Amino acid sequence: MTFQIRQLGTADYPFVISVIDQWWGGRQMSDMLPRLFFEHFTDTSFAAERDGRLAGFLVGFVSQSRPGEAYIHFVGVDPAERGNGLGRLLYETFFQAAGARGCVLVRAITSPVNRGSVAFHQRMGFQLEPGDAEVDGIPVSPGYDGRGGDRVRFIRGLRGSGHGARTQSAAGGLNR
Amino acid sequence: MTFQIRQLGTADYPFVISVIDQWWGGRQMSDMLPRLFFEHFTDTSFAAERDGRLAGFLVGFVSQSRPGEAYIHFVGVDPAERGNGLGRLLYETFFQAAGARGCVLVRAITSPVNRGSVAFHQRMGFQLEPGDAEVDGIPVSPGYDGRGGDRVRFIRGLRGSGHGARTQSAAGGLNR
Repeated sequence: MTFQIRQLGTADYPFVISVIDQWWGGRQMSDMLPRLFFEHFTDTSFAAERDGRLAGFLVGFVSQSRPGEAYIHFVGVDPAERGNGLGRLLYETFFQAAGARGCVLVRAITSPVNRGSVAFHQRMGFQLEPGDAEVDGIPVSPGYDGRGGDRVRFIRGLRGSGHGARTQSAAGGLNR
Repeated sequence: MTFQIRQLGTADYPFVISVIDQWWGGRQMSDMLPRLFFEHFTDTSFAAERDGRLAGFLVGFVSQSRPGEAYIHFVGVDPAERGNGLGRLLYETFFQAAGARGCVLVRAITSPVNRGSVAFHQRMGFQLEPGDAEVDGIPVSPGYDGRGGDRVRFIRGLRGSGHGARTQSAAGGLNR
């Protein structure tokens, strides 16, 4: 199973928007992905193609105001492509790009309902950050994003921490 | 009418989310403003206070992948504070911050329904970028953002172009 990784670009935007809600099992996700991320953060955002078709993507950036920090905003994998390690490949590509830009840690968040995403981030070496609440043993930050958007927060070092040494193949892990 | 301008921060997020839909006349805006903008772009995002109370804010950033470009993502002014030049003050603060970081142009977008915003940007020296459609003489880019999000696109030079020399007091101009 070979994927071609390249930079994400504005030309990918219409296709991504057309499939994003379906890739998330019907959840309304497109509002969380304005075009600006496909225009202004393309050097740390990646598309994965198989046979010329978009199989997945990652939108991430280097924090402008927090030195050494990087952030993964949005990751999507075509349901038909899950279980092939694509999530892991996209994350590792981002870790490399962020590290090359001087970042020493990466943050990401997800929704508490997305247990597959929580497990994926743990396999990828992320730690769960403390929250003000707990749901089924998972620390949750209530109302973290927008109006009532509870989130699970992740953090992962990029250097010398040993994180990621035991990462396994991603089984459909997505964020959000 | 004196405003105190300072950097925007995560401490401002809960208040902004609590008022944002009301400031936009009931439009659902909070989903467009995830917390990441209050964490990772604070050096080019600004809060305006009067008597210790948030009167308005601007969220903007320097493009990571387009050298010399800056982008204004979101600007809000308390309806009770409009007509006092606060929109202009926030934009000029951003222009200065972006210019100090080597930017030579600024982009912004708004919704075609927000005619006050279109007029405000024109007063602030922005040009309207061409669109694939036109609504009441305004060029519009259909489906620019997300699913069916038509947008008017603005661009403004930051140096030696003479743009902005004739800017007037903002009368309630907001973006989106």
